[in-house]
Amino acid sequence: MQVKFWRSIVDTEKNEKQGLCLADMGSFHIGGKDLHVTGKAPREIVVNNKCERRIKFDTNGSYHYGQIYVQYYFPQEEKGKFPIIFLHGGGMTGKSYESTPDGRPGWLNYFTRLGWKTYLVDAVERGRSGWCPEAEEFAEQPVLFNRKYIFERFRLGSDGDAQTLFPNSQFPIEAFANYQMEFVPRWTTSSDLMVDAYCELLKKVGPAIIIGHSQGATLGFELMERVPELVKGFVAMEPYGAGTEEGVDIIKNIPLLWIFGDYIQLHPSWKQAREVAGAYETKILAKNGNCQILDLPVKGINGNSHMLMMEKNNLQIADIVQAWLKEQGLCI
Amino acid sequence: MQVKFWRSIVDTEKNEKQGLCLADMGSFHIGGKDLHVTGKAPREIVVNNKCERRIKFDTNGSYHYGQIYVQYYFPQEEKGKFPIIFLHGGGMTGKSYESTPDGRPGWLNYFTRLGWKTYLVDAVERGRSGWCPEAEEFAEQPVLFNRKYIFERFRLGSDGDAQTLFPNSQFPIEAFANYQMEFVPRWTTSSDLMVDAYCELLKKVGPAIIIGHSQGATLGFELMERVPELVKGFVAMEPYGAGTEEGVDIIKNIPLLWIFGDYIQLHPSWKQAREVAGAYETKILAKNGNCQILDLPVKGINGNSHMLMMEKNNLQIADIVQAWLKEQGLCI
Repeated sequence: MQVKFWRSIVDTEKNEKQGLCLADMGSFHIGGKDLHVTGKAPREIVVNNKCERRIKFDTNGSYHYGQIYVQYYFPQEEKGKFPIIFLHGGGMTGKSYESTPDGRPGWLNYFTRLGWKTYLVDAVERGRSGWCPEAEEFAEQPVLFNRKYIFERFRLGSDGDAQTLFPNSQFPIEAFANYQMEFVPRWTTSSDLMVDAYCELLKKVGPAIIIGHSQGATLGFELMERVPELVKGFVAMEPYGAGTEEGVDIIKNIPLLWIFGDYIQLHPSWKQAREVAGAYETKILAKNGNCQILDLPVKGINGNSHMLMMEKNNLQIADIVQAWLKEQGLCI
Repeated sequence: MQVKFWRSIVDTEKNEKQGLCLADMGSFHIGGKDLHVTGKAPREIVVNNKCERRIKFDTNGSYHYGQIYVQYYFPQEEKGKFPIIFLHGGGMTGKSYESTPDGRPGWLNYFTRLGWKTYLVDAVERGRSGWCPEAEEFAEQPVLFNRKYIFERFRLGSDGDAQTLFPNSQFPIEAFANYQMEFVPRWTTSSDLMVDAYCELLKKVGPAIIIGHSQGATLGFELMERVPELVKGFVAMEPYGAGTEEGVDIIKNIPLLWIFGDYIQLHPSWKQAREVAGAYETKILAKNGNCQILDLPVKGINGNSHMLMMEKNNLQIADIVQAWLKEQGLCI
């Protein structure tokens, strides 16, 4: 492995010892809807796992679900025209943008230190957003990705059992166990709830720039079409979908940067995702829209899996995003 | 309502405009165990809620579960001899200590601003810690507390349907909807996993001071008995249990502060919890141990429910905790 750690803008422009000075930080929930359950028989539950005692628990009543949990970090010295909202991928939480699995700073610290107001979101049902066992969207058992699936699906390598990395991989494989611990169970039935809640968030804190990864990037297209006036820029990291045909006119002038990693051609699903992006880019450019696809290997950056914001060169890629945001006139 | 917002130590000693300067912040997962699932038939799952298509998903494979998610905030100017670890209660997440439901700073900001290194934990299964649908501990459906249950069980008032507050209540009832959104489903079968993971955390970052609420406070007693050398102080907010008979000798010299709110006598479960604390205090004091129970109303502080760290006078109570930590020689 000849990977060298990147000395990023944030390290060179700012004194590292200066740390991170915040005007404020905090969190809130937003979005979702009420659910009133009636007429259900009480459910039997175990009191605790040290005894066999079971009690009857009445699950009738009023719930709220579909909300998202949002953390915010406001730097003392603001340098972004709009805040950045981070949307994570499927089976994960906002943790994706915090420390990397091997304990280095992630994109949350990077962009906050550069002077962006940042909002870190947990998607509906994931992490601190919570979910409601009584709601129809969560009636089925969710899925937790296992070791082999994670390794292969997210392009760390081809053999998830042996954990043989792709050549030149940037993934911090020594910290794979930490990475696996980041995964939470996911349903496949909550996307609409997510987009609804993201809209509510944008109405509260927008206009904003969206940085989305995987499912978060895919849903970002839906979000842009729903509230185009509230999205001032969109960084879509490896989405597996794009906007609609009718949406092209709505979103074409919102600065849009796709990022794809390495080994895309080795994996049928990601090959297809890249094709979807290419086809959509063509449509936007045909109408003189503002977008570009960044294939990292084309830029000479090799070895990135699907998890590019947490790999060894994560700040090298962050630097590219920062330079693009600047180019788009989004920095103060 | 004649409640006045408290001007806390953190507001008077520090310039509010100074904000929060961090040397570092980040997050990690720790603890848990591996689980290898074999021989299960593939599970049918819906691809997404916009179509009826179902796929077969192979759930055999290797998982990890029982880990906890931990955030850390290190102030630039350290003033605590040991870090503080915050443990939250049942059905909730680390969010309990972040912003209050009505958007004011919670105890996380308060103690970090006062110069404590802070660790904010999500209990096993809750929030960003995740859970494993294939593990026996999570075989049953979990419970999400509903509106009425939350209101009555946590002593906001006696009638959860009408939402009639107890007189002089400190709860920010106008933000009840935000408070309800903080709840996540809980199992009753994960306490052992929690204590195991908390031990791992203490081994990594301890010795430390524990501030625990409700279930987090109850399990704190188990934790102290397991690794007494790693606990330098324990603030137990409304636990519903205490230590063991044999544990008294092990923990009696660890500084211990119980805190109970108002209306305890109006609720049989909390009345009992208070009695358990009293009986245990007697045992520790009989052996010249170091502990005290703080009943807020006895100190003239009225109106606190179970959620005292997020109520209108939350920083008044934080000030008391800070003064106690100082008294115990835990500040630099």
